[in-house]
Amino acid sequence: MVSATPVKVHPFDPLSAAEIESAISIVKKTHGDVFFNVVSLREPRKAEMTKWLENPTNTPVPARIADVVVIAPGGKVYDGLIDLASGKIISWELLDGLQPIITMEELMLVEKICRKDPKVIEQCVISGISKEDMHKVYCDPWTIGYDERHGNKIRLQQALMYYRPNLDDCQYQYPLDFCPIFDAEKQEIIAIDIPKKRRPVSRAAPINYHPAAVQKTGGYRTNLKPINITQPEGVSFTMNGREIEWQNWKFHIGFNYREGIVLNNITFNDKGNVRPIFYRLSLAEMVVPYGNPEHPHQRKHAFDLGEYGAGYMTNSLSLGCDCKGSIHYLDAEFPTRSGEIRTIKNAICIHEEDSGILFKHTDFRDESVIVTRGRKLIVQQIFTAANYEYAIQWTFHQDGTIQPEIKLTGILNTYTMDPNEDTYGYGTQVYPGVNAHNHQHLFCLRIDANVDGPNNTVFMTDVVPSDAPVGSPENFYGNAFYPKKTKLSTTGESKTDYDGTWSRTWEICNTNKLHPYSKRPSSYKLVSREVPKLLPKEGSLVWKRAGFARHAVQVTKYRDDQLWPAGRHVPQTSGEPSLGLPEWIGDGTESIDNTDVVLWHTFGVTHVPSPEDFPVMPAEPMTLLLRPRNFFTNNPVMDVPPSYSVTPSQVAANGQGAVDATDKMSQLAFGEAGCCKARL
Amino acid sequence: MVSATPVKVHPFDPLSAAEIESAISIVKKTHGDVFFNVVSLREPRKAEMTKWLENPTNTPVPARIADVVVIAPGGKVYDGLIDLASGKIISWELLDGLQPIITMEELMLVEKICRKDPKVIEQCVISGISKEDMHKVYCDPWTIGYDERHGNKIRLQQALMYYRPNLDDCQYQYPLDFCPIFDAEKQEIIAIDIPKKRRPVSRAAPINYHPAAVQKTGGYRTNLKPINITQPEGVSFTMNGREIEWQNWKFHIGFNYREGIVLNNITFNDKGNVRPIFYRLSLAEMVVPYGNPEHPHQRKHAFDLGEYGAGYMTNSLSLGCDCKGSIHYLDAEFPTRSGEIRTIKNAICIHEEDSGILFKHTDFRDESVIVTRGRKLIVQQIFTAANYEYAIQWTFHQDGTIQPEIKLTGILNTYTMDPNEDTYGYGTQVYPGVNAHNHQHLFCLRIDANVDGPNNTVFMTDVVPSDAPVGSPENFYGNAFYPKKTKLSTTGESKTDYDGTWSRTWEICNTNKLHPYSKRPSSYKLVSREVPKLLPKEGSLVWKRAGFARHAVQVTKYRDDQLWPAGRHVPQTSGEPSLGLPEWIGDGTESIDNTDVVLWHTFGVTHVPSPEDFPVMPAEPMTLLLRPRNFFTNNPVMDVPPSYSVTPSQVAANGQGAVDATDKMSQLAFGEAGCCKARL
Repeated sequence: MVSATPVKVHPFDPLSAAEIESAISIVKKTHGDVFFNVVSLREPRKAEMTKWLENPTNTPVPARIADVVVIAPGGKVYDGLIDLASGKIISWELLDGLQPIITMEELMLVEKICRKDPKVIEQCVISGISKEDMHKVYCDPWTIGYDERHGNKIRLQQALMYYRPNLDDCQYQYPLDFCPIFDAEKQEIIAIDIPKKRRPVSRAAPINYHPAAVQKTGGYRTNLKPINITQPEGVSFTMNGREIEWQNWKFHIGFNYREGIVLNNITFNDKGNVRPIFYRLSLAEMVVPYGNPEHPHQRKHAFDLGEYGAGYMTNSLSLGCDCKGSIHYLDAEFPTRSGEIRTIKNAICIHEEDSGILFKHTDFRDESVIVTRGRKLIVQQIFTAANYEYAIQWTFHQDGTIQPEIKLTGILNTYTMDPNEDTYGYGTQVYPGVNAHNHQHLFCLRIDANVDGPNNTVFMTDVVPSDAPVGSPENFYGNAFYPKKTKLSTTGESKTDYDGTWSRTWEICNTNKLHPYSKRPSSYKLVSREVPKLLPKEGSLVWKRAGFARHAVQVTKYRDDQLWPAGRHVPQTSGEPSLGLPEWIGDGTESIDNTDVVLWHTFGVTHVPSPEDFPVMPAEPMTLLLRPRNFFTNNPVMDVPPSYSVTPSQVAANGQGAVDATDKMSQLAFGEAGCCKARL
Repeated sequence: MVSATPVKVHPFDPLSAAEIESAISIVKKTHGDVFFNVVSLREPRKAEMTKWLENPTNTPVPARIADVVVIAPGGKVYDGLIDLASGKIISWELLDGLQPIITMEELMLVEKICRKDPKVIEQCVISGISKEDMHKVYCDPWTIGYDERHGNKIRLQQALMYYRPNLDDCQYQYPLDFCPIFDAEKQEIIAIDIPKKRRPVSRAAPINYHPAAVQKTGGYRTNLKPINITQPEGVSFTMNGREIEWQNWKFHIGFNYREGIVLNNITFNDKGNVRPIFYRLSLAEMVVPYGNPEHPHQRKHAFDLGEYGAGYMTNSLSLGCDCKGSIHYLDAEFPTRSGEIRTIKNAICIHEEDSGILFKHTDFRDESVIVTRGRKLIVQQIFTAANYEYAIQWTFHQDGTIQPEIKLTGILNTYTMDPNEDTYGYGTQVYPGVNAHNHQHLFCLRIDANVDGPNNTVFMTDVVPSDAPVGSPENFYGNAFYPKKTKLSTTGESKTDYDGTWSRTWEICNTNKLHPYSKRPSSYKLVSREVPKLLPKEGSLVWKRAGFARHAVQVTKYRDDQLWPAGRHVPQTSGEPSLGLPEWIGDGTESIDNTDVVLWHTFGVTHVPSPEDFPVMPAEPMTLLLRPRNFFTNNPVMDVPPSYSVTPSQVAANGQGAVDATDKMSQLAFGEAGCCKARL
C-alpha cells in the first residue's frame, strides 16, 4: 500500500532534492563557489495561486521559483530568485548590513575553534579547567543578536560556554562565566566578554538524566503498565502528495527552513460545499528574551525562527517514540553549505488521537442519552534550539476547531553563579552553582485568513456588563452583559493587547456573509489565554528588534512576501528601524476593513525557572484555539457516529432500537463482575 | 482479581448505604415521617483527623457522623447531626428562611403538575399549543434563585417551559415564553410570569441529533477507523478501599451530594518521604449567570452545586463509552426523599491515559537523545444540570502537577424569540425562533492547602519589568524582569483579581521550608488563565448572592465546616447579607500568614452562544494547573523509563548500550517500507 496517489508537484510543495540541486547548479554556474544559506520555495504569488486553486485544470501552474540566499567570499550576502523551469536567475541582490540565518553547520564550527583558541583556553584555565581538558569544553553558539560594539557588517556568533567533566554529563550544569565572540568569515574568536565578577566553574556533583545515572540513584520505576494504542484498520486520513483530507478538512502541508510546518489552503467540506478558511497558517517568528540585565545577557533573546530556523533545527522523528498509533511521516530536504542535499527523515509526523467526549447529553427525566466520542488529527514537528525543545502540534478537531499547541521541554539555558550569590530575582538557582535566568517564549502566529473568501474584517470582542446601572429599566437586576465588538478598521487600530478580565477574543469575520439565524458574520474566533506582555521595556534592545511582539494582535493587508514579522534577515538587526511588522503597519492609516488581511498574534509564556525544571524540563504545554463562530449552520459533528444513543421513545420501549457501539476493548481495571452499568 | 484489600471504613469514606439507612431510621424514630433532603458524611474535624492520619494505629478513629437535612410537614427545614455509633442525634436545628438543596425527585414533580394546571394550560394555548397536547409540554424546573416578590419562606421552583412536537424531539428548540412558579409545599403553581411581549411557540422544523434524524439528513460519516486503547497488563494504580496510589501520588477519593468528587489527603512520595500537599480539593460551588436583563431571566443564575448538587445530578458512567482502556468505577449512595437508598452505579471513573512526551532533549552536536513518554491519571465524574453537562476531570501528572479540567457539553439554555427580533446582543438566535442567552460558567475551586504541612502562606506573583529605566546602570539594555511577589497577609488583602498581562499566578508557599538550591519556599502554584470577571454588576442580584465570585482568589483561615462559599443552604438566599465566603472574609483583618489556609479560586468561561453550539454543544474544555515550584529538589520524573535513550558515549560507540524501548505496536500509516528513522 502506498501513501497516496502519485501526483505532480503541487505549487505549495517544498522544493524537492532535485529542484534544490538544480538551483544550486544554476547558481554555481554563474557565481562560482559560494556557501548556500537557503534554497527554498519562493511561494507562488497569491493572486496567481488563487486562480490556479479555483480551476487547476485550466489555469497555468504557477512557476517553481527557488528563493536563494548565499554567502560569497568576503562575507558578501546575496538574495536571489531562480526560475527552475527556465534555469534563469531572475533576481540577484547584494545585501548591505544584513546577515542571513545561521545554519547548523555554521553553529558546529564554533565549538571546535573555541577549544583551540589560546584566549579561550586562558579563560577556561581562569575558570578552573585544566588546558589539557579543552575537549571537555563545549559551547552553544548563538547568533550575537545585536551588539552595538560590533554592528552588523561582520557575521558574528556568541559562544555560550559549558564544561562536561565526563562525556555523558549534561553540560548545562557547568556553565562558564565568559563569552567568546566568533567571526564567521575569519573563523576566529575576535573578542571575549569577561564579566567583572568572576565565577569559577561549579564543582558540584553532576546531576544527569541518562539511564546510567538514574540506575545509580535508585533505578527506574517499574510500576507503569503498558497502554497500547493500535489502529488495526489504518488511519482515517488520506494523502494526495502533501495534501491531506480528514473529517471534512483538506489542506496542504508545506515545510520550510524557517517556519517549519506551513499549512496552506485550509478548507472544510460543509455538506458538499468546500469552504475556504485559511489561506496559510504558520508560526512565523518567535523571540525568547532573557530577563537578567547583567552584560552580556541582554544578547540572549533568540529569534529561534528568524535566526536559526524551525525547519533547519527540526528533529528526525521516530515511530513509537514521539507519538503512538499509526503515523505518517514527511521528510524535509535542505541544502548544505557546500551545495549538497541534507535530508531530515520524518521531519513531520501526522497521526490521529482519540479526543474523549465530543458531545454528550442525558435527559434527566428518562435517562435517554447520547454519547459521542471525538477524534483529533495532529500534524507535528519537534525542533531543538540548542538547549530547548519545542514540539509544535497543529491539531484539527472534527467540529471545525484548529488548535495550535506547543510543548516546551529540553533544558534550561543556564549561567554560572556562586552558590550563595543573590540572583536579585532575575534568575533561580536550580542546582548548586547553576543560575537559570527568567525568560519569555513569545511566538508569533501568522494567520492568513480566508474565511469564506479573501475579504475579511477583524473585530476585537470583549464581553462586558451593560452600561445601564442596577435598578435602571434597561438593567433592573444588574445582570445584563453582552459582547462589545470593536472593528479594527486600520492597521493602526489593529494594534491591540490582551485583556483576560473581559475574556477578550478577536474574530476574523466575513462581513459579506451573515449567518441565516444569528445574522452575524461568518467568522473564526481567536481564543488565546497565554498572552503575557513583552517584558523588555519600551525602547529596549529587544523591544526594538522584536517589534512584532509589542502587541497581542496586529493586522495587515495581505502582501506577497510579508511572511516573517521580524524581517527576512534577522541576525544582527539593530531594531533601528524595527524590521518586518512595524514597517508593514507603517503609519497605521491603511484600511484593513473587508479586504484580504493577515492577523499576527503574539502569545507565549513567561518562565521563572524552578528546580523542578532541571536538569531536564517536564513538558509544559501551551495552546490556543481558532474556533468557527456563526460559520456553520449548526453543530457540524452530529453525523459522527455515537458510542451510545437511546431516545425517549426507545427508553419507553425498554431500549429497543438503541444504538450501542460502545468500545468493546475497554475493560474493568480489576476485572470485577457486575460493576458495569446495566444498559437498558 | 479484586480491586483492593478489603478495608474498614476510612474516616473520609462517604456514608455507606447501611450508614445512610441507619441515620434515616434514627431520624424517623424521633421525628416521624419527614422528607430526607440530605444524609451525608459530616467530615471529621480536621484537628482530630490530622492526628489520626499521622498515626492511625494508635489514635482513635474519628466518629462517623451523619449530616442530615430534612423537610418536615409544613415546610419546616431541620439541620441535624447524628452520631452513627451511638445512634444519637447530637444536634437538631429548625432553620428560618433557608431552603435546602433541590433534589432530583423534587424537580421531577413540577412537570407533572404543570401539565395539569389550568393556568399553565391556558398559557400553552396562548402560545399555540393545543390543550390536548399537554403531554408534549415539558419543563426544566429550576430553583427560583431569588425573587423579591416571593422571598424565601416558601420553597419555590420556576418552571422553564418547552414543547416537543414529537417524543424524540429536543425540547430546547421549542421554548415557551412564560414561566410558572411552583410551590413545593403545596405542590401547585402559585403564579405565572408572563412577558409583556408575547412570543408564540416556534413552528420551525425540528433539528435533532438522534440517529433517526441524522439518518434522514445524510446519515453518519463512515470514514472513521477505530483507535483501540488496551491495557493488557491492567492498570498502574492500586486501590485500598477508596484510597488510590499511582506514580508516587496517594489520596482518598470521596464523593458527596453537593460537590461530587472530593479529594482528601493528597500526598506525594518523594523518594521515600511522603509529603502532604493538599488536605482537601474540590469544586465547591459554581454559578451560571445569564446576561439577558428582560424579566424574569435575571432569575437564571443557577448555583449548580449549592442549589442542585453535583453529586445528586451525577451520571452513571459506562464502560467503553465515557472513557477507554481499563477503568475502575466507584458508586455513590444517596437517600431518597422517603428514606430509601438511591445508588448511582459508576458515579466516578478512574483511568490512565498516555499523555505524550514527558520530556525530550537532543544534543544537536551528535544527536544523542532521550525521549520519555508521560502518563496521566484521571478521576472523572459527569453531571447533568438540566440542559448542560459538565465533565469534571481531576488529572494527576507524574511530575507533581494536578490539573482540574472541565468539559462543557450538552444543550444551551434557550428562550423563544420572533425570528426577526433583535436580541440586543444579550443572546444569539442559534436556530429560527431560538434565542440562547449569553452566560458565564463560574466555578469555585476550594483548595485546602497542606504544602509540606498545614502552615502555608499565599503570594500573588506578577512577572514585571524592572523599574530601572532603559539606559540606567541597573537595566542598561532594558531587558530586566522579575517575579514581583505580594504576600497576602490578611483575608482582606487576599481578595485579588486576575491580570493576564503579567502572567499573574498565586503561590501557596510553606515559608518555613526553603528549597536547598533556590532558597525559595516550597510551593504549589496556581496557574489559571480562564478567569473572566463576574459580569453582573456590583450590587446586582447575582453579585449579592454569589459573593464568592467577585474575585479570582480569596484566602481564609481554615475552619471546620467552611466548605461551600455561597453558604450551606443556597436556594432562595437573597444575598442580603451575602452568605459563605464574604462572611468568612469578614472585616478582612484576620491574618492568613503562615497558618492553615484555604484558597478559593473562581474561574470559568463567558459564553456567547453561536449556532455551532446547537442543538447539542461540541465539548468545550477549560483547565488550570496546580504546579510544584521549589517543591522537589529537582525534576521528579527522571526515573520514568525512557522510550529511547542514547548518550554521547553511546553515539561514539555506534549506539552500543543505547536503551530502545520504543512502542513496537506503532505502525506506519500506509505501511511504507524504509520510512522509519534508522536508529544508530
